[in-house]
Amino acid sequence: MPRDRIFSFTQDHMQAFTQELIQFLSIPSVSTLSEHTGDVLNAAQWVLDQLKRCGMSGKLYPTQRHPVVLARSPEVSGAPVLLIYGHYDVQPPDPLEEWQTPPFSPDIRQGFIYARGATDDKGQLFTYIKAIESVLEVSGKLPINIIVLVEGEEEIGSPNLERFLIEHREELRADAVAISDGAQLAHQIPAITYGLRGLCYLQIDIRGPRFDLHSGGFGGIVHNPAQVLSNILQRLKNPDDTVAIPGFYDEVIGLEQWEREEMADSPLDVEALKNYLGVSEFTGEPGYSLVERSSARPTLDINGIWGGFSGEGAKTIIPAKAGAKVSMRLVPNQTPQKIEALFTRYVKGLCPPGVSIEFSGLHHAEPVVVNRNTPSMLAAEKAIEAGFGQRPRFKREGGSIPVVNLFRKHLNQENILLLGWGSPDDGPHSPNERFNLEDFARGIRSAAALFYEMSK
Amino acid sequence: MPRDRIFSFTQDHMQAFTQELIQFLSIPSVSTLSEHTGDVLNAAQWVLDQLKRCGMSGKLYPTQRHPVVLARSPEVSGAPVLLIYGHYDVQPPDPLEEWQTPPFSPDIRQGFIYARGATDDKGQLFTYIKAIESVLEVSGKLPINIIVLVEGEEEIGSPNLERFLIEHREELRADAVAISDGAQLAHQIPAITYGLRGLCYLQIDIRGPRFDLHSGGFGGIVHNPAQVLSNILQRLKNPDDTVAIPGFYDEVIGLEQWEREEMADSPLDVEALKNYLGVSEFTGEPGYSLVERSSARPTLDINGIWGGFSGEGAKTIIPAKAGAKVSMRLVPNQTPQKIEALFTRYVKGLCPPGVSIEFSGLHHAEPVVVNRNTPSMLAAEKAIEAGFGQRPRFKREGGSIPVVNLFRKHLNQENILLLGWGSPDDGPHSPNERFNLEDFARGIRSAAALFYEMSK
Repeated sequence: MPRDRIFSFTQDHMQAFTQELIQFLSIPSVSTLSEHTGDVLNAAQWVLDQLKRCGMSGKLYPTQRHPVVLARSPEVSGAPVLLIYGHYDVQPPDPLEEWQTPPFSPDIRQGFIYARGATDDKGQLFTYIKAIESVLEVSGKLPINIIVLVEGEEEIGSPNLERFLIEHREELRADAVAISDGAQLAHQIPAITYGLRGLCYLQIDIRGPRFDLHSGGFGGIVHNPAQVLSNILQRLKNPDDTVAIPGFYDEVIGLEQWEREEMADSPLDVEALKNYLGVSEFTGEPGYSLVERSSARPTLDINGIWGGFSGEGAKTIIPAKAGAKVSMRLVPNQTPQKIEALFTRYVKGLCPPGVSIEFSGLHHAEPVVVNRNTPSMLAAEKAIEAGFGQRPRFKREGGSIPVVNLFRKHLNQENILLLGWGSPDDGPHSPNERFNLEDFARGIRSAAALFYEMSK
Repeated sequence: MPRDRIFSFTQDHMQAFTQELIQFLSIPSVSTLSEHTGDVLNAAQWVLDQLKRCGMSGKLYPTQRHPVVLARSPEVSGAPVLLIYGHYDVQPPDPLEEWQTPPFSPDIRQGFIYARGATDDKGQLFTYIKAIESVLEVSGKLPINIIVLVEGEEEIGSPNLERFLIEHREELRADAVAISDGAQLAHQIPAITYGLRGLCYLQIDIRGPRFDLHSGGFGGIVHNPAQVLSNILQRLKNPDDTVAIPGFYDEVIGLEQWEREEMADSPLDVEALKNYLGVSEFTGEPGYSLVERSSARPTLDINGIWGGFSGEGAKTIIPAKAGAKVSMRLVPNQTPQKIEALFTRYVKGLCPPGVSIEFSGLHHAEPVVVNRNTPSMLAAEKAIEAGFGQRPRFKREGGSIPVVNLFRKHLNQENILLLGWGSPDDGPHSPNERFNLEDFARGIRSAAALFYEMSK
């Protein structure tokens, strides 16, 4: 491998690569908001153009909502095939007032690039594209076959990807899938993720009287939907912060002793984390460490609540309706379907007569833990060692990458390499999301090294 | 009293009066929203112009926010003085999408005028102005002295009226105060209100992490402000729907047996009320009737809740903050100050460490029960009998008219006539607020009759 030449090429071109990343991050490709549909399409086209400039052939595949970008490198006969997956869509940027600089006007401050999507996932995805370009520039050809699959619906639960994978199953055969949509274990301690929590995300809508009522005239006789909602939400958790839904923990596979020891050995600066988050103390399930609670144990969070008057001043009403978004993080062998059923049955039972309740499932993902002992996993370890200058650790992550299960299910793909180039405090989904430009460079080097390690 | 001539004059002019009311209701004088400051001033000026056209002298008195309109009729020596109080400001109109016609484009359908402020309080206030005008047109002079006091801050708790009353105490000496800002007992069963609930309206703001967090990465270790809020709100009420704040009921004066019998005798069509409200059953404090629970017993309602993501789709965050508006309806001898202290002490105790909580008092009003056996009360009874064609009942109301306490405290005024011209289903504070044009006419007639009854 002409590693040194490639690495020095990338080093020399970081400024140009960063300028291109700024372009990519300037496109407000918020997949959940229909007013951004055009922007999402622009982002897809931008990615495709980048891939074509690397000599790849491909196109945009329309779906019912946002298109899939699929491109393939010129065939290298007999060489392994690596499928790279990423997403070009981003989370909504609100609350806007908390951004130091606008979310879609990328700003570089002290070695970080700040923008919505900087780390999740545009910046990380882009490392592969720049790695391909660097390898081609230096050595004229790729050592393996590369397929790049980039979707625009990851942040809304990939509703159309499953069908796409089924329809393109043959074209997507690969020896491994690489996904960089996460973080290192700690600052400059790279990691490979072997476990992900699943997700069951639901919306509750409660409706009481036909319209908002004067609380003077009707306070004391009518069920208040905001009160009913609060009573329900309170009963989702036990006082010890465990989840109160009957049966919630029934299918949970407990942690092995070796796994707990490995997690206990994780470098974690608790005080620094508190400072970063602005919290004076942590909470969570008794009997488990912070690392375990945030990555390998199931949990439940309220993501949003609403109802009645929230403006300036006082409005004396009983709201006609109230609602909440609630999501549960799952671990093997919980399934979103079963958890949704347990949730809705329990919550329905908490709703008093005279008040109506409706549920909508907004986002589901299976939890997963993958095999750590495969040839492609070994190649990834070596590639990261080359790109970061140190061997990666292994970890489980608290978030979901729902497509991992789609790859397992529809492509029979178990060699899934979750290689997070980000840092733990990048703030994905938060205001002032960022990506360290050093991590950007380390990611490009590691991706290039991965192509060579896989070819061996 | 030239009653028949006055009544027939009003009958002949109802169309013109209604056109003027439409003008008044078209002014979006929402006192709580600063963007409507100009509209609020316009409404004040409009009222003053109306009063001047009736030969009254007066002006706008600026306050720190919205002006007070004060006008006085030409002196009738030796005759009693009636102070008429009303308010020209209105509640915010949201939720806008639930209005059949826009809130500030008054629409007449099947004998009702629909607009924000139709019944609360523009339509009811306007009956006095049109009664003055009718009496003057028919008999050339008023039989008593009339002072009209109209404020623009009733819907935000009259923050500047107290000072105004103190400063204008001498000018405001009167034998009685008439206020029409409520409803009859039932359709075409007029009533005089002798009791009002008080109000203690607070806002809670809860703050957890510094910014919204990814619920994947941090779910399970960080206190979720929306969860903390729900837990607090749930604990404000007991399972039997009584208020759970320790000490809340300590100062409550119980209902007398005769009062309970009178309330039990109230005409109340429970099924019609359920249909109107769109609820299949009522709730409330055990051991008390619907009428008692909604008018003479204290209660607590959540008026609004917010926090996190409430848009379309899924956003997987732990919100940085959450909040609620909560109000308590009070009865003698509860005081808003004491109740606020009990509330904040209790709620603070429910807030876990690591989460901050702040309280703001948004609106306070003392509960009140007035003497039913005074000469002005008798005059009001007779006037309503003339204007409505039947004797009024006596009732207590669930809402607050905070100024009543200000009149008692600063003007030593105990002769307070609460004469609701509205109907119970007018929907004050709700979308599609309305006022029956027959009630408008009955109110004008009763107000005119009141002037004569008081002069006897």
